[in-house]
Amino acid sequence: MEGFAFSTSVRVRFAETDAQGIAHHASFVVWLEVARVAYLELHAGGYQAIRDRGIEALTTEVCLRYHRAAYFDETLTIWARCRDLRGARFTYEYRIEREEELVADGYSRHATVDRETYRPTRVPDWLAKAIVTAEASSA
Amino acid sequence: MEGFAFSTSVRVRFAETDAQGIAHHASFVVWLEVARVAYLELHAGGYQAIRDRGIEALTTEVCLRYHRAAYFDETLTIWARCRDLRGARFTYEYRIEREEELVADGYSRHATVDRETYRPTRVPDWLAKAIVTAEASSA
Amino acid sequence: MEGFAFSTSVRVRFAETDAQGIAHHASFVVWLEVARVAYLELHAGGYQAIRDRGIEALTTEVCLRYHRAAYFDETLTIWARCRDLRGARFTYEYRIEREEELVADGYSRHATVDRETYRPTRVPDWLAKAIVTAEASSA
Amino acid sequence: MEGFAFSTSVRVRFAETDAQGIAHHASFVVWLEVARVAYLELHAGGYQAIRDRGIEALTTEVCLRYHRAAYFDETLTIWARCRDLRGARFTYEYRIEREEELVADGYSRHATVDRETYRPTRVPDWLAKAIVTAEASSA
Repeated sequence: MEGFAFSTSVRVRFAETDAQGIAHHASFVVWLEVARVAYLELHAGGYQAIRDRGIEALTTEVCLRYHRAAYFDETLTIWARCRDLRGARFTYEYRIEREEELVADGYSRHATVDRETYRPTRVPDWLAKAIVTAEASSA
Repeated sequence: MEGFAFSTSVRVRFAETDAQGIAHHASFVVWLEVARVAYLELHAGGYQAIRDRGIEALTTEVCLRYHRAAYFDETLTIWARCRDLRGARFTYEYRIEREEELVADGYSRHATVDRETYRPTRVPDWLAKAIVTAEASSA
Repeated sequence: MEGFAFSTSVRVRFAETDAQGIAHHASFVVWLEVARVAYLELHAGGYQAIRDRGIEALTTEVCLRYHRAAYFDETLTIWARCRDLRGARFTYEYRIEREEELVADGYSRHATVDRETYRPTRVPDWLAKAIVTAEASSA
Repeated sequence: MEGFAFSTSVRVRFAETDAQGIAHHASFVVWLEVARVAYLELHAGGYQAIRDRGIEALTTEVCLRYHRAAYFDETLTIWARCRDLRGARFTYEYRIEREEELVADGYSRHATVDRETYRPTRVPDWLAKAIVTAEASSA
């Protein structure tokens, strides 16, 4: 995908379908999280490593547009990129594709907080640097 | 809530929490659907009645902003209203509150399709009328 | 239900259905938990109160037999009773009914642990007494 | 695993954890299904292929014993084998491991039904043969 350097894939589980015979729209929100976790594993030592350093990343916003239905057992590619990292906040943008067909796109916003106090805390430098480096290479 | 005439409530299930100790953000997407189902039950004979007449309502967009965390066993009020009903499309707007505190807000967009062919089909007149009547009384 | 004094009800959510057009079998496991939480709320001040006193109840076993399918928007009654409370362990038994028809039955086993160390700790006397009292009245 | 020839793996998603900080026990039920789907893909052309021939496999029973907690982002191996295929019924047995440590074990029972009528129908010969062949090689 132009503008995206990172992708991961998910396989639609039967439990993720609904009585319309398609993947339920809430399942996509979980897949975006799977993509963020994979992204952070590749670029920043994993989300658990971030948590182990006393930081949680909260989700403050999620928007998804569904362009086509997804079906049981299909493999979907989730393209993800991190944008607008500033202070305690950052944004992920996504495209979900089946082969080269656009299934959904959207974004999520996040804020880093201290794991004990749940008060906002700047994205640590090592993590910010890792993300900036990752995204620079995809520009 | 000013501007909202309809609300329903959900109780946060333990299964809906995550290892951050809060309700997982994807759970909210399910609660919006619970609210739409309750709304249609009150105003239009139920979602199953709509399906029984050969129509499915697909979700084409979901956006949620999370303002505060929600916790296990809390009761949340979900205010919902239907807007912009035109042709095969309509929008729901939501406010999720704990007591009178705003926890999240957002909207979802939907399109009605024929249940056999999955091709767009106008919202049937009886349903459009039911919704317009419901919302007129809340204006 | 003979032998059961406690019940709660759930309404099948659309998100809980699957592409077979029925409630997904994993949804039932969540409903059993909803029933336990409601049971503890009635009889023991709520599950959160137990957690607040430094105890978690882990699930060590779940068994469910599915006799009939459940469908979107149906109201199911979940009968639950607590049995075999001994040391750090106890068992719940369940019957899930639609009107008076048996939909599923089963049981779950649990162990109480210290919330900090996750080591087994006896069910506290106040909780054991509350459960024994509750069940005595249903015998 | 002795006695098991087939395994697949899952990675614990953040959405699958709960406020106890561990994978929620209902998530395991979904993973067993993921394993069955992978098993049928390897041995019988996929579950969708079975559905396409007009058959659904219903879950009639699930039992799980949880021996250890599983945590976010861990990779779990799910060993699965099919047993007792008779008429319209068959059983799967499972062991879920983290590295070589037993995390959970259990079984599920299933019945094949006609996809239109939902009445029991024998497991088709081609599928029975595929499973018997697969399991013979693992004995």
